[in-house]
Amino acid sequence: MDKIKTVAIVGGTHGNEYSGVYLQRYWNKQPEAISRSSFSTETVFANVKAHEQNKRYVDFDLNRQFSHEDLNNYDLRGYEQCLAKSLNQQLGPKGNARTDFIIDLHNTTSNMGPSLILLQADLFNRQMGAYVKQRMPEAVVVFEDHATVEEHFFLSSISPQGVIVEIGPQPQSVIRQDVLDWMANMTKHILDFIELHNQDELPALPDTYEAFKYTETLSLPLDDAGERAGMVHHSVQDGDFKPLKDGDPIFTLFDGTEIFWEGDYIAYPHFINEAAYYDNNLAMSLATKIIVNVD
Amino acid sequence: MDKIKTVAIVGGTHGNEYSGVYLQRYWNKQPEAISRSSFSTETVFANVKAHEQNKRYVDFDLNRQFSHEDLNNYDLRGYEQCLAKSLNQQLGPKGNARTDFIIDLHNTTSNMGPSLILLQADLFNRQMGAYVKQRMPEAVVVFEDHATVEEHFFLSSISPQGVIVEIGPQPQSVIRQDVLDWMANMTKHILDFIELHNQDELPALPDTYEAFKYTETLSLPLDDAGERAGMVHHSVQDGDFKPLKDGDPIFTLFDGTEIFWEGDYIAYPHFINEAAYYDNNLAMSLATKIIVNVD
Repeated sequence: MDKIKTVAIVGGTHGNEYSGVYLQRYWNKQPEAISRSSFSTETVFANVKAHEQNKRYVDFDLNRQFSHEDLNNYDLRGYEQCLAKSLNQQLGPKGNARTDFIIDLHNTTSNMGPSLILLQADLFNRQMGAYVKQRMPEAVVVFEDHATVEEHFFLSSISPQGVIVEIGPQPQSVIRQDVLDWMANMTKHILDFIELHNQDELPALPDTYEAFKYTETLSLPLDDAGERAGMVHHSVQDGDFKPLKDGDPIFTLFDGTEIFWEGDYIAYPHFINEAAYYDNNLAMSLATKIIVNVD
Repeated sequence: MDKIKTVAIVGGTHGNEYSGVYLQRYWNKQPEAISRSSFSTETVFANVKAHEQNKRYVDFDLNRQFSHEDLNNYDLRGYEQCLAKSLNQQLGPKGNARTDFIIDLHNTTSNMGPSLILLQADLFNRQMGAYVKQRMPEAVVVFEDHATVEEHFFLSSISPQGVIVEIGPQPQSVIRQDVLDWMANMTKHILDFIELHNQDELPALPDTYEAFKYTETLSLPLDDAGERAGMVHHSVQDGDFKPLKDGDPIFTLFDGTEIFWEGDYIAYPHFINEAAYYDNNLAMSLATKIIVNVD
C-alpha cells in the first residue's frame, strides 16, 4: 500500500459522544500529541450544531449519509444530508479523496471496551489490528467488511483507508476518564502504526489474532401496535463479545416472558442495548469470532 | 401519622429516564400490580412532551419547579414552568394536596443502585427506609432533609409525604432490565409499607440502619474562560456511596493534572458524573453516613 500523507481525526460526528469532542479540544491546544513526521494530521469537529444541542444529530444520523447515492442526492431532507456534502467536500470527495486516512471517534453506551472497527480486511488493516492489540491487549477488533469501503455509508468511508474508534460504556453526554484514556491511547497507537508503515519500520507482529466479523443486527421485540414490548435480557446486558448460543435467553418482555435466540451459529453480540439504536428499535449487532492472519 | 388514602406514582418527570415510563405503561395494563386495599393508586406521566422529544426536559428541569415561589410565579420562562402549575393543580395544590403520597420514579447514569431518597426524617420515613432495606438489602436510603418538604422544589414535595426512587446506572434513553426490576421491586415494597402502615400491621423492624444524609454538591473544574477543564477522576467514577477522604483524588484535568479533595469530613459521593448534572457543571453530590434510629 502507498504511504499515507494526510490524516484527519474526526470527533463529534455524533454530538452527544463527548470523548472525541473533548480530546480534540485538548489536541488543538497540544498538537504535538497527534503530530508525526511522515504525514500531516488535522482535527475536524464534524457536527458542532448537534453538540451544541447536546444531541446525537439535529435531523438524521450523520454517520449514515456517506453512500455515493446519498452524497449525490440533492433532495435534502435535513441538516445532516447537507452537512455530509460539506464534509465530503472538505475531506474527500469520496472516491478521489484528498484525505488518505480518517480516524472517526465514537462512544457507545454498550460495554464494548476499546473497539477498533475496520471496514476492510486488507493487509494494512490486518496489520493495524495486530499492532493495536499488541499494545492494548484489552482492545477488540471488529471487521465490518460485509460491504466495500465505497459501498459503506459511514463518514470514514470518504477516504480510501480509515477506522472507527468505538469506545464504551459511556452514557450519552458524559465524559468518563477510563473511556477518554482508552480513546487517546488507541488513537496514539493508530497514528504510530501509520508512521511506522510509512517508514517501512513495522515491528514484528503476531502471525494471527482473534477478532470479530459483523453478521447481522437484531431488533427489539415489538407488539402488534408496533410499540416496544420488551428489552434486552439481563443475562445479555453488558456481555458484549461474549458468546450467544442457540436457545440462550436474549429478550425479556415487559410481562416477564423470556425470548430465546434461535441461531445456527455461535454469535458474539455487541452494541448491546446501545441508546442510539432505539431510534430504529434495534437491540444489538451480532458477529462471528474469526482468526485473522496477519501476513 | 394519619392513614394514606391517595397515592400517585409519577414517571417521566425527566423524559429520557425510561424505567418509570415503561413501568407505567405495564402497570396501566396490569393495575393489580400497584393496587392495594387501603388506598387508591393512580399513575401520572409527568412530561410526555419531553419524552416524545427524547430529552430530559423541553426548556427547564421540571423537577426544580415546585417551590412555592415558583408555583406562584406566572412569569413563565418555558414549558416546564407551565407544566409544573398544571401538575400542582392535578396532584396538589402543594400545602393542601389531594394526593397524600407521591412516588416519583427516576433514573441516574451514576452507579447508585436502587436508591430511596427521602425528604424528611420523621418516624414514618425512618420506618419506610427500614422496611425497604429489610426486603432489598442492596437498597440505599438517602435523606435530603436539609430543607423541609415545603421548602423543597421537587415534584414529590407537592404532597405532604413522598419519595424519589432513583435507580442507576442507566444511560439516558435506555431500558436496562436490572434497573427496571429494581424499580418495580422498590415501588412494590413502598406500596406494601403504606398498606401495612394504614392497617397498623407493620412487621418488626430493625432498631437502626445505615443511611446517608446529603451535605453538598461539587462542581466540575472550569478554566478561566468558564469551559470545562477536567472530569471526575477514574478512581471516583462508579464509586457511589464509597468513602472519600481529605486528600483523595477527585478530578483529572484534561492535561493530566490530578485534583484532590479538601474536606474536613468523610464524604460519600453519589450522583457521580450524572449526565444531567453537566447542564450546571456539577460533578457529584456528597453525603455523610448516618445511623438511623427507627423508633
